[in-house]
Amino acid sequence: VKGLLLDLDGTLYVDDAPLPGAVHTVRMLVEQDVPCRYLTNTTRISRRELALRLQRIGFPISAEQIFTAPRAAAAWLAAEGIRQVALHLPAATREDFVEVVATTGTPEAIVVGDLGEEWSYSRMNAAFRQLMEGARLVALQKNRFWKTAEGLALDAGPFVAALEYATGREAVVVGKPSREFFRLAAASMGLGPEHLTVIGDDVETDVGGAQAAGMRGVLVRTGKYRPDVLAGSGVRPDGVVDTLAEAVALALEP
Amino acid sequence: VKGLLLDLDGTLYVDDAPLPGAVHTVRMLVEQDVPCRYLTNTTRISRRELALRLQRIGFPISAEQIFTAPRAAAAWLAAEGIRQVALHLPAATREDFVEVVATTGTPEAIVVGDLGEEWSYSRMNAAFRQLMEGARLVALQKNRFWKTAEGLALDAGPFVAALEYATGREAVVVGKPSREFFRLAAASMGLGPEHLTVIGDDVETDVGGAQAAGMRGVLVRTGKYRPDVLAGSGVRPDGVVDTLAEAVALALEP
Repeated sequence: VKGLLLDLDGTLYVDDAPLPGAVHTVRMLVEQDVPCRYLTNTTRISRRELALRLQRIGFPISAEQIFTAPRAAAAWLAAEGIRQVALHLPAATREDFVEVVATTGTPEAIVVGDLGEEWSYSRMNAAFRQLMEGARLVALQKNRFWKTAEGLALDAGPFVAALEYATGREAVVVGKPSREFFRLAAASMGLGPEHLTVIGDDVETDVGGAQAAGMRGVLVRTGKYRPDVLAGSGVRPDGVVDTLAEAVALALEP
Repeated sequence: VKGLLLDLDGTLYVDDAPLPGAVHTVRMLVEQDVPCRYLTNTTRISRRELALRLQRIGFPISAEQIFTAPRAAAAWLAAEGIRQVALHLPAATREDFVEVVATTGTPEAIVVGDLGEEWSYSRMNAAFRQLMEGARLVALQKNRFWKTAEGLALDAGPFVAALEYATGREAVVVGKPSREFFRLAAASMGLGPEHLTVIGDDVETDVGGAQAAGMRGVLVRTGKYRPDVLAGSGVRPDGVVDTLAEAVALALEP
């Protein structure tokens, strides 16, 4: 059995518009019962909401098939036997944790994501004190910034870096491109990394991350793909193709 | 001519109470016209206010003799020919800059200190965007945290680290124990480092910093002094004594 891990934004769609042939390709994967996970680092939306959004634009993808950084964090916490957790996450993402963790007692771990405007000094200080009392630091991702209509905006990374500096300890980063993320996604499918191919438009995060985790990585020339970024990266994809359909064919060929 | 650089908190006083003999020693330094600077990393109070507070508890110390991280920053900006600056500092500390910088145009540098509760996402983002538009990052200090009555509180360091991570650039740290701080303090006295001794209770920040800047460093067993910290540090002070009076005698002996 071969399985696929597919990146979402830039690989299946751009700005809520499906890429040419992408909906057809995903429908075919469903018909042929190919084990699939859909990957994203987003920390601002729950899996349920994301699945609804994907279905609305034509993709037959269920919440259970979506593997996000919050889901990776929940899997990591379960594997570590950690139940008491403090969530420094937007409300939409907290939803992905409520079934697996308790947030009432002294936290054994804190989970940090992109809180945006919800970051304040007292919020940062609360997280810092929890860490100083022994909680582990789990970061959904460590991205530096993203682009908004109003200009650049700080992502979760700088706040994670602040907490690392304050405590002198390193965060466990569970989002892409961490090896942990791909390992946990594979575990959720019950398949070993040698049977899996990651398909994405980011040569470092998708393809480099996949290969570091022992999977194959195929790059599609859509979304954020840039030939100079590929040339300048140290990553050598297992394939570079124009469309999702070609990537899937390459990944599934015998 | 020999000069002295004296640490304040823990060396001259603890919790607003002068250490035994400290007031007498400082009065003697005034009578003997010994060139002195009083050093502190505080970023929450202006030199003028600090001088008033010192005078109130008996020390004849003027604002001009106090060398703070803000003063070091102002000296660094002047040396770099930078006039347009954005100040991410508490109001009390901004006072030390108004005469030397302009804060109206596009900043060529931003100065970051311990803003405490004034830190917010939009404040961090404003600083980040200024840096991305080319401004240099000047940090008054990079301390991790301090102790308050309510518990540990994040100092300036974590926020500086966040901005460094977001931009991929390193801050110029002008406070103790940076070499820059001691170099600028010496320059403000018109004396070379070989003529200066630093006296303080912190083996790393005071004594180690002094020695790295080519000065002598004498440790006093007051304030935060701890024998195990001294033993565990790689620093070998030029003297370790019990009182400020002994430290001054050692520093000024022919």
